[in-house]
Amino acid sequence: MTLAQAENYRILREADLRDYLAGRPKLTAVLGGVPGDWSITEVGDGNINLVFIVKGARGGVAVKQALPYVRLVGESWPLPLSRAHYEYLALTRQAQLAPGLVPAVLHHNDALALTVMELLEPHIIMRKGLIAGTQYSRFVDDITTFMAQTLFFTSDLALTAAEKKEGIAAFAGNHALCKITEDLIFTDPYRIAEQNRWTAPWLDATAASFREDFDLHVAISRLKLKFMASPEALIHGDLHTGSIMVTESETKVIDPEFAFYGPVGFDVGAVIANLLMAYLASSGHERSPGDRAAFEAWVLETIEGVWNEFARKFLGLWRSDAKGDGYPVSLFAGEAGAARLDTERQAHMARLFQDTVGFAAAKTIRRILGLAHNLDFEAIADEKLRAICEARSLRLARRMMVEASSFATIDAVIKAAREVRGWQPDFAR
Amino acid sequence: MTLAQAENYRILREADLRDYLAGRPKLTAVLGGVPGDWSITEVGDGNINLVFIVKGARGGVAVKQALPYVRLVGESWPLPLSRAHYEYLALTRQAQLAPGLVPAVLHHNDALALTVMELLEPHIIMRKGLIAGTQYSRFVDDITTFMAQTLFFTSDLALTAAEKKEGIAAFAGNHALCKITEDLIFTDPYRIAEQNRWTAPWLDATAASFREDFDLHVAISRLKLKFMASPEALIHGDLHTGSIMVTESETKVIDPEFAFYGPVGFDVGAVIANLLMAYLASSGHERSPGDRAAFEAWVLETIEGVWNEFARKFLGLWRSDAKGDGYPVSLFAGEAGAARLDTERQAHMARLFQDTVGFAAAKTIRRILGLAHNLDFEAIADEKLRAICEARSLRLARRMMVEASSFATIDAVIKAAREVRGWQPDFAR
Repeated sequence: MTLAQAENYRILREADLRDYLAGRPKLTAVLGGVPGDWSITEVGDGNINLVFIVKGARGGVAVKQALPYVRLVGESWPLPLSRAHYEYLALTRQAQLAPGLVPAVLHHNDALALTVMELLEPHIIMRKGLIAGTQYSRFVDDITTFMAQTLFFTSDLALTAAEKKEGIAAFAGNHALCKITEDLIFTDPYRIAEQNRWTAPWLDATAASFREDFDLHVAISRLKLKFMASPEALIHGDLHTGSIMVTESETKVIDPEFAFYGPVGFDVGAVIANLLMAYLASSGHERSPGDRAAFEAWVLETIEGVWNEFARKFLGLWRSDAKGDGYPVSLFAGEAGAARLDTERQAHMARLFQDTVGFAAAKTIRRILGLAHNLDFEAIADEKLRAICEARSLRLARRMMVEASSFATIDAVIKAAREVRGWQPDFAR
Repeated sequence: MTLAQAENYRILREADLRDYLAGRPKLTAVLGGVPGDWSITEVGDGNINLVFIVKGARGGVAVKQALPYVRLVGESWPLPLSRAHYEYLALTRQAQLAPGLVPAVLHHNDALALTVMELLEPHIIMRKGLIAGTQYSRFVDDITTFMAQTLFFTSDLALTAAEKKEGIAAFAGNHALCKITEDLIFTDPYRIAEQNRWTAPWLDATAASFREDFDLHVAISRLKLKFMASPEALIHGDLHTGSIMVTESETKVIDPEFAFYGPVGFDVGAVIANLLMAYLASSGHERSPGDRAAFEAWVLETIEGVWNEFARKFLGLWRSDAKGDGYPVSLFAGEAGAARLDTERQAHMARLFQDTVGFAAAKTIRRILGLAHNLDFEAIADEKLRAICEARSLRLARRMMVEASSFATIDAVIKAAREVRGWQPDFAR
């Protein structure tokens, strides 16, 4: 944030926001009617920002404003306003690459750290739908298009090295958001940290064993280094099911304020981890035994589809749109060359899959032993039942992280998930 | 380069340079005497810059000015003046991290793309000394200190992630120089390219086989991707024996204009590749059979020392100065934790060694089949004899690149070098 930004920043309250929007014809046209009649509701349920829904006679908008601190914690945990700038940069790039899969940006003000977007209605946060047991038939196709398009076209396979370096530099300033991930995902759950919490007393022993498990600590440290120093593509950086809004017929990816150039597997792993958690939390939401069996089967199919369709689309783009400096086609001339390059493409995808498995495990463990938990588990009121679901997830995640290479395909992950679904932790026996 | 820079840039000729230096008291104090009496000699023997040596009554300075094009080729190959800025940035950082091992910068002018440095005298370019068969007893200690200090302290093991990202961004603009490496080292030698050349007709068949060797093309493409997207540390980027000036008692690393955040193994591999070429070129410089045996034994010892001492010093810094965000010490508490971390450090060094072997191979092949050759081979007047030395180097390099993992230690590389020293290509039989 420049000094000019700091001077011009102010937190917009309702009346202030009304005046601000009323002064912008593009927005008044969307809202319609008289500004005094607009309804303005603060709805931010995330941890760090203000979010307003504004509705007028004609339509509505969503307004997101960054606060100079973490909302959940307060002013004692400052967080730079510049994250709104990076979110805007990422949103506009994603809109170009994956049209229709992110909310349209109507207005952005860097100094106010404020972005006005189309109102997504009647979309809901996907995580809430999953907790309710809703199946989303469009999801696999949409999320894999989003990931394949945004990750391929910002990689060395599609960009020149110069374009790639410019992209990396453009997002390098977003390091405070990266630091949150580095601490809360890659470090704190594996050591004593004030902010850690878990479902006590059931998970006390597992939490303690994770803090003393050096094989796990080596694995998470390798993943952390990969997160910090592998700018493979412009990643969303926080692609869990709380950053995805859905209806039966639409999928929208929101909130890319953690965006930077990082490892592809971090985004794909985030989606898979959150689906695995939805699967293993599902039994905690049963009203009668087995009443979510069809939903659970759909979740597993969806996980399979997320990897396989992502890989298929990413490979397809690599075959059709390889204009980048990586793997120059000129080195693989003729039929034999093309065949060899395609074998190498498969090997590259296999390496991305290994990363995906490891990052998925990291994203799971942090949700159960770290600061930020997710509603899939939190909404299970019976704490022992919740702990059973969480213990299963931790058991699967530990295997995925330490023995990532034993998971050669997504089917192996699904098989392991099914097995752990039937496993009972000691405290449940 | 900003517009202001473009407007203020001019190529300094002798008289102009004299006036420029005369107007800077700090420099006139170094030179001493009357400006009119200073001797000014253009000595640039590199491919892309002007270099003047200026001597006065008291002392001398070296003046390096970037030209807006590649000197070797002319104005048809433009090259941004900003490289002088990055060279200056790198030189000053290296001077902090490895004091005494780079020339002292006395003056820098970004707009003129001009840097004035201490005159290194009686230092000579190390490559020339190696061709003459000179042994440098300080070299292993100095170059491994330079590499360990500059590469460790700019890595995630020593820096916070935020500092690291700032460093990456600061050098991201140097992409035109990276592009030269990407093209001339990682692409052109493996395909038909106008600028390629080799010792014909002797190496015609090998050059053709390298252009059709898809195992090699996969290996070089993986290395290229690593070069483009693995910002492990601030690397020199062109660390061959022509970028090192030596006396019996001093080593100075010069010319870091290719500096950027890249893979550690690229620098270490460059040193090892150029020593391997010095070793395999040596028989081409014999006046009588075996008269360079002691020199050749010293070169092999030096190669062994370069890796082993680099690894020892890098590991030592990691143990003593691990203030970075990578591999947090807090995850490896107690005696068992410390032991596990140290095992992982060794594993990390083993991965860096694999990279080093691969990059060393890449640096070798480009010097024999690509645009820029080196004097070790070029100075062998008998073309068939030169081709024999080059064919041995290519044979070794191909193995190192395609079978890098079969070289677990530097001793394995040295053994292979010894073996190939006794091998005769078909055309020599």
